[in-house]
Amino acid sequence: MRLKLSLAYDGTPFCGWQSQAGGNTIQDRVQAAFRSVGGTNVIVHGAGRTDAGVHALSQCAHVDVGEGSLTPRDWLRAVNANLPPEIRIMRCVKAAADFHARFQATGKRYDYRLWCAPVHPPLECRRSWHVVRPIDLRVLKRDAKKLVGTHDFRGFSANRGHPVRDTVRQLSRVEVRRDGPRLTLRFEGNGFLYKMVRLLTGTLIQIAQGRADESLLDDALVGKAKTSFAAPACGLYLVRVDY
Amino acid sequence: MRLKLSLAYDGTPFCGWQSQAGGNTIQDRVQAAFRSVGGTNVIVHGAGRTDAGVHALSQCAHVDVGEGSLTPRDWLRAVNANLPPEIRIMRCVKAAADFHARFQATGKRYDYRLWCAPVHPPLECRRSWHVVRPIDLRVLKRDAKKLVGTHDFRGFSANRGHPVRDTVRQLSRVEVRRDGPRLTLRFEGNGFLYKMVRLLTGTLIQIAQGRADESLLDDALVGKAKTSFAAPACGLYLVRVDY
Repeated sequence: MRLKLSLAYDGTPFCGWQSQAGGNTIQDRVQAAFRSVGGTNVIVHGAGRTDAGVHALSQCAHVDVGEGSLTPRDWLRAVNANLPPEIRIMRCVKAAADFHARFQATGKRYDYRLWCAPVHPPLECRRSWHVVRPIDLRVLKRDAKKLVGTHDFRGFSANRGHPVRDTVRQLSRVEVRRDGPRLTLRFEGNGFLYKMVRLLTGTLIQIAQGRADESLLDDALVGKAKTSFAAPACGLYLVRVDY
Repeated sequence: MRLKLSLAYDGTPFCGWQSQAGGNTIQDRVQAAFRSVGGTNVIVHGAGRTDAGVHALSQCAHVDVGEGSLTPRDWLRAVNANLPPEIRIMRCVKAAADFHARFQATGKRYDYRLWCAPVHPPLECRRSWHVVRPIDLRVLKRDAKKLVGTHDFRGFSANRGHPVRDTVRQLSRVEVRRDGPRLTLRFEGNGFLYKMVRLLTGTLIQIAQGRADESLLDDALVGKAKTSFAAPACGLYLVRVDY
């Protein structure tokens, strides 16, 4: 039986999603929990990787489990009981036998959260990017609009060992919301390159603070410049994966 | 110069407010930060103690610092720079020379937060009490009203070594708010006994779940019974201290 999982996690104590030798990744922890329930050598396939410190409200994944007596609901409860409290399966349903969490994803939504005030409240630490220097909201909103559409985002990507050939992605929505000291940038698109949201956010904020020139954004959007200032991982949330 | 501080903290990594031998308390950390800025052997007097794991949005404290060149705003910045991110001075102002954070407090507000759903979201872990068994909201609200007024709360207190002689306190407000899975109990009063909010919350919830009888509350409120089920520390927030 193939299960489709919606996973939430506080990324703080983990070395990101992707399984690695040390073992302290979200994928490793979820696999270990499935194995302690089911005993088999399951692999949990995520819709995408998240970096160390990045959070998820709903990462999607699929996993094959034996056709035993456990229902998806039973799996949810049993696996959650074997996970640290920083990781939870929020939903678990039976999926089609050919469902694939990564290959069939048609879009994703990320939120990037900032806290704009002189003091970073303790309950916000490691959950938002603390920014003290003033941000010109008008500039930020104008630039956010520029990102919408289909662009070659190679200027907003980092190398993860293997080069990506196709760097064209479509962003359907980039929203800026301010609620007191809380500032949220919302990105919706059909796909994201490695570090893309953090580089987009870092660049937008630097320009809106007057620390970088508008031309950096314009040049990077046509592939003529490479951005390098990535907003910190702790402000990034994978909010939704669409199929 | 006497400073009045408003402190916020995530209580998770600390052994409570009160200074102790191990040193990993909020009072110890704040004193150490003041000492590394000012060099003198300052004592930070809090409005009250909070237990290990209890959070504060605004704990109040006073501290005497030398009449040097630092303004309250300078102290705030410099001390915050020497604190772990889980503790922050949110406000710092000059106070009257005889201001006392504990003796002059006229009231406090605590919030107790619960999360009522089958799965506890990871970003809520250690920040709310996860309750799965159904709660009768009608019963909870009715019982919350009973607490308002002046009562002998000895039945809702725990011993902290030295017995407290006067156990009469006045609660001016006990509110129940539900927002989806989030349930918040708000307590305002002129003073609180040790563990009082957690014992009140634990007892209210047990009755509203049908796990304890209404008579336990009635008897404890007239000093004829002692309650023992304290809601966990992680759901408790010191929200405000009044003067």
